[in-house]
Amino acid sequence: MQLDFESRVFETRVVSMGETTERIVAGGRHLFPLLPKAFEGVRQIGVIGWSSQGPAQAQNLRESLEGSDIRVVVGLREGSASMAEAEAVGFTRENGTLGEMYSVCAESDLVLLLISDAALAQNYTRIFAVMRPGSTIGLSHGFLLSHLQSIGEDFPTDMNVIAVCPKGMGPSVRRLYEQGREVNGAGINSSFAVHRDIDGRATDYALAWSVALGSPYTFQTTLESEYRSDIFGERGILLGAVHGIAESLYARFTGKGMPRDEAYINTSESITGPISKTISRSGLVAVYEELDDAEKEAFRKAYCASYHPAREILEEIYDDVASGNEVRSVIQASNRFDRYPMGNIDSTDMWRVGETVREDEGRNYAPINAETAGVYMACMMAQVDLLKDRGHPYSEIANESIIEAVDSLNPYMDYRGVSYMVDNCSTTARLGARKWAARFDYILKQQAFVRLDDGEELDDSLFDDFLNNSIHQVLTVCASLRPSVDISVVPTRRG
Amino acid sequence: MQLDFESRVFETRVVSMGETTERIVAGGRHLFPLLPKAFEGVRQIGVIGWSSQGPAQAQNLRESLEGSDIRVVVGLREGSASMAEAEAVGFTRENGTLGEMYSVCAESDLVLLLISDAALAQNYTRIFAVMRPGSTIGLSHGFLLSHLQSIGEDFPTDMNVIAVCPKGMGPSVRRLYEQGREVNGAGINSSFAVHRDIDGRATDYALAWSVALGSPYTFQTTLESEYRSDIFGERGILLGAVHGIAESLYARFTGKGMPRDEAYINTSESITGPISKTISRSGLVAVYEELDDAEKEAFRKAYCASYHPAREILEEIYDDVASGNEVRSVIQASNRFDRYPMGNIDSTDMWRVGETVREDEGRNYAPINAETAGVYMACMMAQVDLLKDRGHPYSEIANESIIEAVDSLNPYMDYRGVSYMVDNCSTTARLGARKWAARFDYILKQQAFVRLDDGEELDDSLFDDFLNNSIHQVLTVCASLRPSVDISVVPTRRG
Repeated sequence: MQLDFESRVFETRVVSMGETTERIVAGGRHLFPLLPKAFEGVRQIGVIGWSSQGPAQAQNLRESLEGSDIRVVVGLREGSASMAEAEAVGFTRENGTLGEMYSVCAESDLVLLLISDAALAQNYTRIFAVMRPGSTIGLSHGFLLSHLQSIGEDFPTDMNVIAVCPKGMGPSVRRLYEQGREVNGAGINSSFAVHRDIDGRATDYALAWSVALGSPYTFQTTLESEYRSDIFGERGILLGAVHGIAESLYARFTGKGMPRDEAYINTSESITGPISKTISRSGLVAVYEELDDAEKEAFRKAYCASYHPAREILEEIYDDVASGNEVRSVIQASNRFDRYPMGNIDSTDMWRVGETVREDEGRNYAPINAETAGVYMACMMAQVDLLKDRGHPYSEIANESIIEAVDSLNPYMDYRGVSYMVDNCSTTARLGARKWAARFDYILKQQAFVRLDDGEELDDSLFDDFLNNSIHQVLTVCASLRPSVDISVVPTRRG
Repeated sequence: MQLDFESRVFETRVVSMGETTERIVAGGRHLFPLLPKAFEGVRQIGVIGWSSQGPAQAQNLRESLEGSDIRVVVGLREGSASMAEAEAVGFTRENGTLGEMYSVCAESDLVLLLISDAALAQNYTRIFAVMRPGSTIGLSHGFLLSHLQSIGEDFPTDMNVIAVCPKGMGPSVRRLYEQGREVNGAGINSSFAVHRDIDGRATDYALAWSVALGSPYTFQTTLESEYRSDIFGERGILLGAVHGIAESLYARFTGKGMPRDEAYINTSESITGPISKTISRSGLVAVYEELDDAEKEAFRKAYCASYHPAREILEEIYDDVASGNEVRSVIQASNRFDRYPMGNIDSTDMWRVGETVREDEGRNYAPINAETAGVYMACMMAQVDLLKDRGHPYSEIANESIIEAVDSLNPYMDYRGVSYMVDNCSTTARLGARKWAARFDYILKQQAFVRLDDGEELDDSLFDDFLNNSIHQVLTVCASLRPSVDISVVPTRRG
């Protein structure tokens, strides 16, 4: 995929990513004065929906546009329980920044559709019908494109269609933006896509939106590439796989006699603590380098035993996303919610033990467990390699497989367990994580761990491929594009 | 769904099934002399493929038609490794009963397409092209219809399209037929469907085919109802669910300190031994009746805690089958087999322990574990209730949810563990079992077992619904339609 773009407002840069180059826009608060020019023609931005991305994007946009003439207005279903939440942070009917969703759609020049995927699938016809010709449809991921394709429909031809897709869940987009008040440039990276440009302004609208969200850097993709990698990534290492890996290793370690609290610390805590932090600060190979010789051997074995089993499931997920199966399943599941709403995933032994572990204030001692690191990173690298083979740009690969995991999502699992991470994400993500976690658990148990225990000869070339992977250089470039800020997770779960 | 049919050759009966009636044909060897008349116009039956159903159907048909003018000829890919296997049981080029598949398709009046689903999806165009107008396409399940629907195509309009679908895997169809030499009427029940009838002969062709396979009774369905219940059922209690239930309970029992061999005996062995045998001989409620008071209480609790979690996954499976997602996934998986062939599912601790348990010749003492029975039968009943709600005929429900499980499949798991059952089935079934077993495991662990351990109040009305379910009367009718024969499982796995 060869992409490129031009901006009339923002400075762009070309960066080397592995064997490719990409044009990007580096963000930061010093660019906020350019936003009115980039948003030329937009007097009102409607933010529709108040689930994961809605609250974050509405607040970030309002703050970034402070002092300009551009109004940010939240639009919700009449009678929505979220009205009170939006009012609590200052979007009110009185000051004209809160309204019924279809009215807000009709009045806004740029309409950000941040309602749940199922709601979007149900309501897009009416939304498009009330929007003004010449206005701009804004998406934060490509789900709707996939849905329209699967039923043979298309976006309206008389509107711009753009996407800005933060590579982290809403609460992270908000938290890091807040931290950005102290450290300029702190935030969640975003991709952008221009799917339809009717007036030559679509690219700068998208870039302005992204800069206003606080994206440290913004890279280009297509709506199709975005939804594939996004829906795939959250089923893979971002949510589904990390859950399944943690469960599978916990069962393995306790089955071998490790006390349950230690098993929790050596699986979930090891991943969300030192492994994630080391990757975030120093890259993937640094995790391996921190181990002693015996641990290095254990890491290598776990890595080589796990890579192909993990990749097998990842290939299946990608094909199911690309063929539309996953999106169809999400719509079908939403139609069953009245009888079968999603259940708890953190009431089992492992996560209850985790609660106890977390209550111990003195804890903060999870080690890099070599086997856990080997399994986890094998899955991460299998995802990286697969996305490369399927033609995704490196920025998308690095963000959807590594940066979003270690900087945005894992800290939530670290703070309060798996559900606090998964269930703060979109319905599509929550369903996908539930669906695929079990598959990773089973295939690791059935294939990887069996090989480890049987002392089978493993393919060491997989480990060499890991050491020589272009992704390490890509991560270095990505890291140079933003300040190093640990997300400080505070309770944000909605009541 | 209101179905009915007429036969010019076989006697039919109307039986009461719950609040409905169904017309059926009772089988038996005494009907074999009627086969030539029912097959009027058919001089050659081509059996295409040699995987699960092929060897069984080719041999049963040949034996049932002995002495008639109708020839049974096996057609395989040129160079197929299965040629030698077909020759080993007497289908040879020399005696004109073995040939290249397209030639056999071109020469036969009735062509039974028993190649794998993926192969069928790849080759049906050429097969239809070489077949003669006026001939008959025979299917053993509705997969191809689902595939054709999903790509907007149809069967040829100048051929009959019929299906006879044995409610058991190929090896069982053969084994029970062999046992039928001693006990007239032993065999696997089949459904039949007439999808297209161009000459008024399609119904009797289908009935003759079914009688010749040794079906104790043959009931009517549609190709669509068949593929839905078939692909759904094998992902549910027949293969996927029973695997996931056994694994989930094994982890639960060992986690509570039960020795591993006892845990195997109280889960897998309990299901495939006394629970299946009791259901087969005396029906579902008999399992409960055999328990003492404390066990009855444990059964009720396990049943009520597991019914809805199991049903939630079953609803998801049914929707994924009905929307074509499952069939698409199967085709996609087949395209990955060169890199990722299906792996072992029985190398894990549980199944290795099972091997040791089975080596103990003195064993035969698995009890009805009350909790295991409650979980297993809750899933079975959830499947029954779902199929009823979705409009399937009772014969199909009983066979796809209960009879096939306890009489055909579970004995294979009993004999050699989970893989010996699952991997003797079709590729579509094997993939589906792998996909869904893990989901049942997780949801039981996350929802049912948590509720049991927390002593949560459970909905007892679920248990009353079980006691009053129409399925018990249906099973009694089904049992009256055939002799009670335990399948004697002998090694039949192909090398």
